[in-house]
Amino acid sequence: MDMENLYDLFVEQLRDIYYAENQLLKALKKMSEKATCPDLSAAYSEHLEETRGQIETLERVMQSLDLEVKGEKCEAIMGILKEADELISETENEAVRDAAMILAAQKVEHYEIATYGTLCAFADCLGLDAQAELLRNILAEERSADEKLTKLAMNLKNGVNKTAMQEAA
Amino acid sequence: MDMENLYDLFVEQLRDIYYAENQLLKALKKMSEKATCPDLSAAYSEHLEETRGQIETLERVMQSLDLEVKGEKCEAIMGILKEADELISETENEAVRDAAMILAAQKVEHYEIATYGTLCAFADCLGLDAQAELLRNILAEERSADEKLTKLAMNLKNGVNKTAMQEAA
Repeated sequence: MDMENLYDLFVEQLRDIYYAENQLLKALKKMSEKATCPDLSAAYSEHLEETRGQIETLERVMQSLDLEVKGEKCEAIMGILKEADELISETENEAVRDAAMILAAQKVEHYEIATYGTLCAFADCLGLDAQAELLRNILAEERSADEKLTKLAMNLKNGVNKTAMQEAA
Repeated sequence: MDMENLYDLFVEQLRDIYYAENQLLKALKKMSEKATCPDLSAAYSEHLEETRGQIETLERVMQSLDLEVKGEKCEAIMGILKEADELISETENEAVRDAAMILAAQKVEHYEIATYGTLCAFADCLGLDAQAELLRNILAEERSADEKLTKLAMNLKNGVNKTAMQEAA
């Protein structure tokens, strides 16, 4: 796909993140089942629902621009999720696996933050105000999901990292 | 590689990011040559030097823990850089390519921010204070590089996005 202007690049990235979110749906389901810490499992289930809503929002954005609703294979998310899979399979201890899954999920969140941040900037530049607002809402959800994961990991009393250290010293 | 405790996971992620930084060295060289906007080209060259320093710092961290200095293939960065390559080859217009390269570089920065953020948290948890400090310095550099790219893209007067829109409307 040749991209001749900023709008083409905007559409390409919309389809990239639409593909990524759909892949993430499957990964989040697996992670919420594998998580041991109840708060972590709940956080994954909650973000799974949020991701479903984000996919619908992306569909609305594409429809509002008369674009065919479709994704485009995103090599980056495939790599990030492949690494996540490896981390899960290489950690037997449950607490250590929880820590590994938070790490993997934060890599996903940061990929999304970078992509939505750029999509918002492109939409602003292109005068696509309604679309920019929808994308900004998703960006805020991704930032908040990332912060929630950091808190879960860092909380020194019951945090996942602390548990991982105590249980598998 | 089986990871039985938080230290194993810390070492695995150290090697993951060491591999990633080494891959990035090559990509940054290419991007600095391909960039048209002089400020962007300069930003890539500057971050290339910073990345060389970060690689040395990671080597010091490994040596300080009596670890063999080596990387471990990082599927995530391979995916992110493959996508960057595709973006560059699919954009003929120079201003649009600059915007695409900023986007790609910010995805790299966010991958690094997520990884170093976790490495710092793990190091704190493991009581590796000296290593945590070194890693925190790198994290600050990555955050600053990301902010610089955002500014370059967003500056409405001469920003790369604006140029991309004007030159290829």
